[in-house]
Amino acid sequence: MKSSTLVRNAAGRLVPTEVNGKAQVPYQGVGAFRPEGRKAAPPIRSCRDYPPDGDKRVADLRTALERCGLRDGMTISTHHHLRNGDRVALEVLRTAAEMGVKDLMWFPSASFPCHAPVIELMEQGVVHHIEGSMNGPLGEYTSRGKMRGMGVLRSHGGRWQAVQDGEVHIDIAVIAAPAADPFGNANGVQGPSACGSLGFALADSLYADHVIVVTDHLVPFPCVPWQIQGNNVDYVVVVDSIGDPSQIVSGTTEITRSPDRLLIAEYVARFVRDAGIMKDGFSFQAGAGGIALAFVGFLKELMRKEGVKARFVRGGSTRVLVELLEEGLTDYILDGQTFDLAGVASMATNPRHVATSPFTSYNYHGKGNFASMVDVVVLGATEVDLEFNANVNTHSDGILLHGIGGWQNCLFSRCTILALPSFRDRVPVIVDRVVTLSGPGELIDVVVTERGLAVNPRREDLLEALKGSDLPIRPLAAIKEEIEAILGGKPEPARLTDEPVAVVKWVDGTVLDTIWKVEE
Amino acid sequence: MKSSTLVRNAAGRLVPTEVNGKAQVPYQGVGAFRPEGRKAAPPIRSCRDYPPDGDKRVADLRTALERCGLRDGMTISTHHHLRNGDRVALEVLRTAAEMGVKDLMWFPSASFPCHAPVIELMEQGVVHHIEGSMNGPLGEYTSRGKMRGMGVLRSHGGRWQAVQDGEVHIDIAVIAAPAADPFGNANGVQGPSACGSLGFALADSLYADHVIVVTDHLVPFPCVPWQIQGNNVDYVVVVDSIGDPSQIVSGTTEITRSPDRLLIAEYVARFVRDAGIMKDGFSFQAGAGGIALAFVGFLKELMRKEGVKARFVRGGSTRVLVELLEEGLTDYILDGQTFDLAGVASMATNPRHVATSPFTSYNYHGKGNFASMVDVVVLGATEVDLEFNANVNTHSDGILLHGIGGWQNCLFSRCTILALPSFRDRVPVIVDRVVTLSGPGELIDVVVTERGLAVNPRREDLLEALKGSDLPIRPLAAIKEEIEAILGGKPEPARLTDEPVAVVKWVDGTVLDTIWKVEE
Repeated sequence: MKSSTLVRNAAGRLVPTEVNGKAQVPYQGVGAFRPEGRKAAPPIRSCRDYPPDGDKRVADLRTALERCGLRDGMTISTHHHLRNGDRVALEVLRTAAEMGVKDLMWFPSASFPCHAPVIELMEQGVVHHIEGSMNGPLGEYTSRGKMRGMGVLRSHGGRWQAVQDGEVHIDIAVIAAPAADPFGNANGVQGPSACGSLGFALADSLYADHVIVVTDHLVPFPCVPWQIQGNNVDYVVVVDSIGDPSQIVSGTTEITRSPDRLLIAEYVARFVRDAGIMKDGFSFQAGAGGIALAFVGFLKELMRKEGVKARFVRGGSTRVLVELLEEGLTDYILDGQTFDLAGVASMATNPRHVATSPFTSYNYHGKGNFASMVDVVVLGATEVDLEFNANVNTHSDGILLHGIGGWQNCLFSRCTILALPSFRDRVPVIVDRVVTLSGPGELIDVVVTERGLAVNPRREDLLEALKGSDLPIRPLAAIKEEIEAILGGKPEPARLTDEPVAVVKWVDGTVLDTIWKVEE
Repeated sequence: MKSSTLVRNAAGRLVPTEVNGKAQVPYQGVGAFRPEGRKAAPPIRSCRDYPPDGDKRVADLRTALERCGLRDGMTISTHHHLRNGDRVALEVLRTAAEMGVKDLMWFPSASFPCHAPVIELMEQGVVHHIEGSMNGPLGEYTSRGKMRGMGVLRSHGGRWQAVQDGEVHIDIAVIAAPAADPFGNANGVQGPSACGSLGFALADSLYADHVIVVTDHLVPFPCVPWQIQGNNVDYVVVVDSIGDPSQIVSGTTEITRSPDRLLIAEYVARFVRDAGIMKDGFSFQAGAGGIALAFVGFLKELMRKEGVKARFVRGGSTRVLVELLEEGLTDYILDGQTFDLAGVASMATNPRHVATSPFTSYNYHGKGNFASMVDVVVLGATEVDLEFNANVNTHSDGILLHGIGGWQNCLFSRCTILALPSFRDRVPVIVDRVVTLSGPGELIDVVVTERGLAVNPRREDLLEALKGSDLPIRPLAAIKEEIEAILGGKPEPARLTDEPVAVVKWVDGTVLDTIWKVEE
């Protein structure tokens, strides 16, 4: 079933030429693939078939799915803004199971540990396979070759691209909405399950054949802001609860306390200053991890000290970014998702805290996107090699554990920094060859570890700018050798079979690498 | 060239079966036509072909048009938010003339007297024909049979529908933007030429093959709010001035002083109250004409007196609506265009003054739209017959003088009121047969004149609700007879040939009626 011809792509990786019955284009290099044709488009509808009073409510999810014509083999999409608190995605798939439907493709924008029970639905034949990030238990299930179809990992931008380009056709999109009106206008900033933006569901609302909004907070028309437009929505279902607020957003965001990680964060901030990136009108993006948050803290101090103001910062937003905005150290937060309550509250009330979507931020098959306009981005990785190629999907054992998120898309920033401890659980992260290639080294400019900073030799401009800096700039190979000496050698090689179980897509829809079934 | 088979449609009107080389569907009745197929979609683009720093500026309009591949026979679209102050549309067409391009189709969202020089460009062969509202001089030019192609009149919603459904393919959209950044994000609420919303250009930005933003107010990325998204824009052109502010928005809005018109406005307001429409949470829409503004003034008094608050009011907004919002008499203004400076300022700063688009408000080929959720709408007309059929495009002489605007779309409200003086220039407006059918009588519920109010007999519910009202409710025929007695008879019949020069589209893209060439 998973057998497929394998070819070697431009990154030297063996990739299947067909995935889940669809022909694939192997990765051709950064910016090499030229797409053709027109975007996908949903069916033309007519007001004649919708209630003139705008009330699209139906009794329950089952009714909505029935009216959308749910049947075997369809693709159902959900979004992940409710993160590990999501109660809707599983409910949708379980309702499909009750209806006796089989062989669905589940197309989440990401999955979380709360979605582990989808494994049972795959065992029962309700779900055929998943295309979307397969973290934790779902990743391991895939890696062990138990999923009937192949996993397809896409970045946030790549998911938009795949839907927009017609690579993935969504039959029914189910959008969990923290606030909605009976017409289907919906947002994520109001109600008891507020999560911030609903940007990850926007493509689904625009391109799916049928769209269902599920909410636990119904407001009279109009629900403002309408991050999701009711004019794209077929049915509205009101339920008691769409999620567990304590798992949707954390009340507070934790800055790392590890001395090593704090040192890395400080190095990154000083690098941004010393390389001349930190100047009036600049922009940056950092995630919500401990190092990233600490980095923002250090950078904020440097900005204050030198009187520098950013034009915009990219979220995932947290309290740390909100403080930056409120203190006037940035004009705007351009935000794809809010990670804590401070982020949600700010997006709900501050017009300079702007919700973005994967279309504006990340879609590579648009007329440009925001990611390439960001001056500096700070990312993580599980592995990096001496060519600066990096892995975020597997660890050195090759088991699929993480999605891509916006990571690939962010690589297009003017300066991409990987900030990572040089080893984890006594396994070196700088390796001879990354088990999985998630992003090509030519887009990665700097690797920052607690043992020093390595600048990609391609970036002579950065090396030139750093002359005079007292940062410990070192060759990546030197850091690698030092770690191997400390840990007593290289990581154990991953024990993998030659059977592909999932692929990693590049931002343009080509196949960058393959996830292989692990040996039993 | 204009010869075409004529058929009689469901409204009994003779309409051509082909217009500008494209087969047409005759009007089939309200809600009778069922569209098929998928929406149109623009070409898939790639970031590889756009500047990574997001700077899409080119030297001038000619360079932008050249890079968009402008050539003979293409369709160029513009929007009309700058109204009679627009300097961009004409400049685009004149630049095309300089480039030696011929036979263009100009597809404005509306035209104004400032666009009269397009007649010269039609004479020169640069512009082949216009599809869009042809007001004033352009309308008369069309009516005299001088345009090479046929005019196609569409409502605001019908224009969206035509673009969305692929009936009109826009090769190059040129969007005059009061504020924009180098990436092409744009809005209408900032800068010296601020006009409010850019909603009429939204479809163009989404569906055109190529999109050019022209601005006289460049701001650093990001231009917030981005009513037009830079991810849909190819080139940005910075010019000295996109328009004459004094003609874009009026400083103040004039309420009628005519006693007859004030009486009509008062009747309408009392009708809304007496019919039980004016109650907490209700909604209404009225235009920016003198009667409409006076109506809002009267209604506001009644709302204050009875302590009633609206959930939303629809713009075109004016000072009068802004005051309603600021006084707390409505929760929201949902606004398609701002007619005065107070409207622009409010949209720029008040989050409850929400910019809408023809997609959310009017598109009939969506999953519902806002228009049918409005409790009561007050509109004008040039003629109405005893079946409540109405004309907004021509006067009794049959000469094309007005576009449709949102008029057809608004007919879908829960109660549609035509507020009109019973005669103009000593010509009765209640007639045996409207010269041009712009909207079917079954959607028109009430006609209000200074001589009384006539309720469509289909609306028994309204007649029932009005029992006990002291308003002068009368049969429409009685009002008609009274006027004819005063004026000495019916209007002169229009002197028209049997040659079609333009068609009036219905909201679903079918052909509702024909504009005929006038006798010389």
